[in-house]
Amino acid sequence: MKNDSTPITKSRGPAEHEVRAQIVAAATEHFSHFGYEKTTVSDLARVIGYSKAYIYKFFESKQSIGEMICGNCLREIEAEVSAAIGQSDQPPEQLRRMFKACTEASLRLFFRDRKLYEIAASAATERWQTVIVYEANIQRLLREVLQAGRLSGDFERKTPLDETTMAIYLVMRPYLNPLLLQYSFDYTEDAPVQLSNLVLRSLSP
Amino acid sequence: MKNDSTPITKSRGPAEHEVRAQIVAAATEHFSHFGYEKTTVSDLARVIGYSKAYIYKFFESKQSIGEMICGNCLREIEAEVSAAIGQSDQPPEQLRRMFKACTEASLRLFFRDRKLYEIAASAATERWQTVIVYEANIQRLLREVLQAGRLSGDFERKTPLDETTMAIYLVMRPYLNPLLLQYSFDYTEDAPVQLSNLVLRSLSP
Repeated sequence: MKNDSTPITKSRGPAEHEVRAQIVAAATEHFSHFGYEKTTVSDLARVIGYSKAYIYKFFESKQSIGEMICGNCLREIEAEVSAAIGQSDQPPEQLRRMFKACTEASLRLFFRDRKLYEIAASAATERWQTVIVYEANIQRLLREVLQAGRLSGDFERKTPLDETTMAIYLVMRPYLNPLLLQYSFDYTEDAPVQLSNLVLRSLSP
Repeated sequence: MKNDSTPITKSRGPAEHEVRAQIVAAATEHFSHFGYEKTTVSDLARVIGYSKAYIYKFFESKQSIGEMICGNCLREIEAEVSAAIGQSDQPPEQLRRMFKACTEASLRLFFRDRKLYEIAASAATERWQTVIVYEANIQRLLREVLQAGRLSGDFERKTPLDETTMAIYLVMRPYLNPLLLQYSFDYTEDAPVQLSNLVLRSLSP
């Protein structure tokens, strides 16, 4: 468990933040061309023009850099999903929009550049901290929509909220998780609508 | 599109059937130790003690042998799912059993031997004919359970049957398709029950 905002060495003031951002930007660019798996910290050092030791002052491993890139990407998806929910005040419509936004944002952010998919795939396979936080946040957003729908009378209240949340999360998972999504391209057009309809039928009071 | 029961050359009587079975048995054994991707028809010929040309009289490619092995495996899953459905005459219970049997049979048959998983993965990725037939058969079994439930009054009848069938199939897909199932191991214990519950709520009249 790492905390990306904790400096490895003693604080250096604002310059540290800038150097980290510069490393992340250069790494994102390099990974997108040459792939995350094949790139080493030495490769990054050479490209950026820093020594390997200097990079290690800011990131303890290649994975730390990958975690920051991945975290940025996952936070972007989360923000889009949150914004999509915010576009309606009707819980059933919020759920539809959530499903659609999850699928579209994941498709775009994980696959717009095949090489960046590799980072997301490593993160999902190895269950990086950023992924665990992200999944918890998506589940929290889902739970909030369900809770709102229970209060408004749109959704049934008999089933325990935790059970409903988890079951619907499992229905969404193939369109959220990059490892499953790569094998679900044939369904990304229709599945969000078909599955939202099924889920909404399951929620009817 | 191939038909495995059609001889490539002119009919040779019962001996042909035996030779094909012998090749398939030896190939299954060999693939399970050395992997499907890495094995060539020359490797198989050497192991079985036939010439490569002789094997090509019975199978036009390695994939033809793989298709027969995969087809046997998929038919076994199908038979188990069908038997599970047959153990109850109540459509809701049939649906639960179907979900459970799909997951358990797929887990056992695709993953009991990691090397045989490779064939199933190739088949699913390249959408071999056996896979297309298998998916259609599972969807047919599902549709029959849904139809029976509509007749018995257990399931709602407003949603078009095709739409309901496809949506529930999509819910089951991560536990049926070997490519998705490999990333769903954490959920195979609880998901069949949680998702059956959700699906049954969605079907309530």
